[in-house]
Amino acid sequence: MSDGEILVIGGGIGGLTAALAIARSGRAVRVLERAPEFAEIGAGLQLAPNATRLLDRLGVLDACVEAGVLPERLVFNDALTGARLTHLDLGEDFRRRYGGPYVVMHRSDLLRILVEACRTHGVALENGREVDEVTTEPGGVTVTCADGSRHTGVLAVAADGLRSGVRGRLSDDQPIDSGYVAYRGTIPMDEVTGPISLSEVVVWFGPGLHLVQYPLRSGRLLNQVAVFRSPGFAAGDPDWGNPDELDAAFSVTCEPVRRALPSLWRNNRWPMYDREPLDNWLTGRTVLLGDAAHPMLQYLAQGACQAIEDGVSLADSLDRHLTDAAPDAVSVDKALHAYQDERIPRTSHIQRTARVWGDMWHIDGVGALLRNEVFTGRAVDDYRHVDPIYGA
Amino acid sequence: MSDGEILVIGGGIGGLTAALAIARSGRAVRVLERAPEFAEIGAGLQLAPNATRLLDRLGVLDACVEAGVLPERLVFNDALTGARLTHLDLGEDFRRRYGGPYVVMHRSDLLRILVEACRTHGVALENGREVDEVTTEPGGVTVTCADGSRHTGVLAVAADGLRSGVRGRLSDDQPIDSGYVAYRGTIPMDEVTGPISLSEVVVWFGPGLHLVQYPLRSGRLLNQVAVFRSPGFAAGDPDWGNPDELDAAFSVTCEPVRRALPSLWRNNRWPMYDREPLDNWLTGRTVLLGDAAHPMLQYLAQGACQAIEDGVSLADSLDRHLTDAAPDAVSVDKALHAYQDERIPRTSHIQRTARVWGDMWHIDGVGALLRNEVFTGRAVDDYRHVDPIYGA
Repeated sequence: MSDGEILVIGGGIGGLTAALAIARSGRAVRVLERAPEFAEIGAGLQLAPNATRLLDRLGVLDACVEAGVLPERLVFNDALTGARLTHLDLGEDFRRRYGGPYVVMHRSDLLRILVEACRTHGVALENGREVDEVTTEPGGVTVTCADGSRHTGVLAVAADGLRSGVRGRLSDDQPIDSGYVAYRGTIPMDEVTGPISLSEVVVWFGPGLHLVQYPLRSGRLLNQVAVFRSPGFAAGDPDWGNPDELDAAFSVTCEPVRRALPSLWRNNRWPMYDREPLDNWLTGRTVLLGDAAHPMLQYLAQGACQAIEDGVSLADSLDRHLTDAAPDAVSVDKALHAYQDERIPRTSHIQRTARVWGDMWHIDGVGALLRNEVFTGRAVDDYRHVDPIYGA
Repeated sequence: MSDGEILVIGGGIGGLTAALAIARSGRAVRVLERAPEFAEIGAGLQLAPNATRLLDRLGVLDACVEAGVLPERLVFNDALTGARLTHLDLGEDFRRRYGGPYVVMHRSDLLRILVEACRTHGVALENGREVDEVTTEPGGVTVTCADGSRHTGVLAVAADGLRSGVRGRLSDDQPIDSGYVAYRGTIPMDEVTGPISLSEVVVWFGPGLHLVQYPLRSGRLLNQVAVFRSPGFAAGDPDWGNPDELDAAFSVTCEPVRRALPSLWRNNRWPMYDREPLDNWLTGRTVLLGDAAHPMLQYLAQGACQAIEDGVSLADSLDRHLTDAAPDAVSVDKALHAYQDERIPRTSHIQRTARVWGDMWHIDGVGALLRNEVFTGRAVDDYRHVDPIYGA
C-alpha cells in the first residue's frame, strides 16, 4: 500500500531538516504541519558547528550565514558584579577546529530557508494537517488528520515537538517544568542604549537567573533572552513567572543587565521544560525526532542543533538500509533502529549535560565563587568542555 | 585598689596563652578556671604557622613539636569517589615561607604544656572558680566567684569560651547552631586497619559531610573527626545528630572513609556552633578573648590559632600602653582598644571565611564538580588562599 513517501509530522526546524535531508537522497517526502503556515515562535537561535557542518552538507549554510551573524566570541559575565569571567573564542581557529562556523540567526529566517530548500527539492509541504492517528499496517503507515485527510507512506517521522502526540504511545512521561521562565525580545540595534558588541554572544549569569544577548540579521537587530527561577512556581502561584517576578528577579543585577529589561516582550513568557531521556523512540514504522524525542533545557543552545543532527542521521540511515522503493518491514525496522541507536546516547547525554550547565549558571553562594574561579582560570581556546558537543 | 594583677577568666588554650604571654612581660597574672582541673575536651588540634610562630616566641613550640607531629601535606580527597583532589605542601618550603611549622597535637598535650609554662612564669592558677560577676571600679576590676572568693586586678580578660558569661553584657547574640555535628575519636595507630599516612592531614569531603584524619603523639595515635549535616536538626528532632544519623550520613562514602566509623567515640557528639562577629569586645576594664570573642566553625582549623594570636596581641598591647604598675583608666582603655582594633577585623574575616570554607567542603551537585575542578587544577605550592591566614 505504500506509495513510497516518507511522512514527516511537524514542520518545525527538526521536521523540515529531516524532510530536506531525506528529499536530497531522492526520496519522496511529505510534511504535515498543523499550523496554517510554517512559522517559528521565538526570536534568536544559536547554531554551533555540529549543526552548521550539516547545514552546509544540505546546501543551506551560505543562506544562513547571509541572514545571520558569525560571532567571534561567546562571553560569560557575572550578572551581579558585571565582571567578565571568560570567553570561548569562536574565530578562525574555532571554525577550522570544528569544520564549521558558529552562527546566530533569527529562527524565522532559518525556517524560511529550510522551507525554500524543501520546495526546491520537491518536498510536499502541507499546512493545516493536525494529525489524529498514525497506524502501522503491512507495508507502511497511514496518518489520519483531523480534517479527514489520510496519508500513506513507508514510515512516519514524528517531529511534533515538546508535547508530541506520538511520544505518548511510547511513554507516559510528561514535560518536566524546571520552574524557570524566559522572556525574549528583539530590538533594532539603533534603538539600543549602552554599548553592545556586534561580534559577541554574551551570557550574564547570577543566582537563579541569566541573560543572553546577541546580534541578529547582520547586526541590525539585538536579540535578548532573560531567564529566571520563578518564586511563584515553587509557591504554587497560578500566575507564576509574571512580569513583576521578572523585574524583581533582575533588580539585583548590574546596570548593563537591567538595561535589557524594557525591551523584552512582556506579553509572552516561555516556561522552560525538558523531559527525561527515553531509551526507545520507535513504535511500528513511526520514529521520534527533535523535541518530540529529546526536549532539553536551553543552556547548551543545542535544541535546534540536535534536531538538525537527527534529521541528517535519519536520512543517512535510510540511505544505508532502505534500498527498495517499497522496502519490507524488516528493512524499515533496521533503518529506524540504526537511527535511534546512533542518536539516543548522544541526545540523552546532552539533555543531562544541559541541566548541569543550567545549575552551574544559576548557582549561588560559594558555588558561584567556585564557578567564577573555574571560568576565570580557563584559557579562551580551551575547548575541552565543548569538544564532545561541537566535535565531529 | 588594684593590686596590679591581670585576671584571666577561663583556663583553656586562649586564657592560658594570654596568661603566659602577659606573665612573660613581667606582669602578675591570675587565671580563674571554673573546672576542678585544667583539661581540654576533644582530641586533636591543628596549629598553623600563624600560631606556631607565636608559640615559639612564648618558648613552648619545641615542647609542642615533641608532643605532636609535623605533617608534610594537607590532603583533600573526595569522600564519595575516594579521588585525591589536591594537597597543600606543608614541608620545608612551607615552613620557610611562613616562619613556622604546621603542627598537629593532642589538645590535652598543648594544655599541659601551657599550664607548665604558666607555672614556670609565676602565673597564679586557680581551679573551681566559677565567675559570678565582674565589676569595673575606679582603679580596677573586681571578679566575684560563686564560691564567695573575690579577686581584684587591673583588668579582666574573659576567655570563658563559646557560652561566655561576660559576652552577654556586650551583646544579646546567641551561638548559631550550624546543624552540623562532629564525632571524634582517637585510636592507637597499631589498631588501625587500612593504610594511613603518618605524614598527612587528610580531609575527605562530600555532600553535607567530611572526615578529617591525622596522626598524634609522634604517630602513635590516629585522630579522626567525622562531621555531617543532621537531617534531624532540620526536622526539629530533639535527638538530632545521633549515631544512627552518623552511620546513615556516611553510608554513601567510599570504603576508606567508612572504615573510620567504628573507632569514633559514640557517646559524645559536638554540635558545631559559631556566632556573628561583634564590633566591640570591651566593657569597662573587661575584654573578650578566644571563643568568647569570636567562636568560629572549624573548617579553617583556626579556632585555637586565633585564640593564641589574641593572647599575644593583648600582651603586646599591654606592653605598649601600660607602663605603670597601677595604670589609670585611660591607659587601660587605650590598651584594650588597641588590642580589639587589631584583632576584630582579622577574627571577623576568619569567622566569615570559615563558613564559606565549610560550604565549599559540603557542597553538592554541580557545585561539587566545580570545587573538584578548582582543587584538582591548583598547584600544591599555590598558597594564595592561606597566605592571608598563615602569613605574618
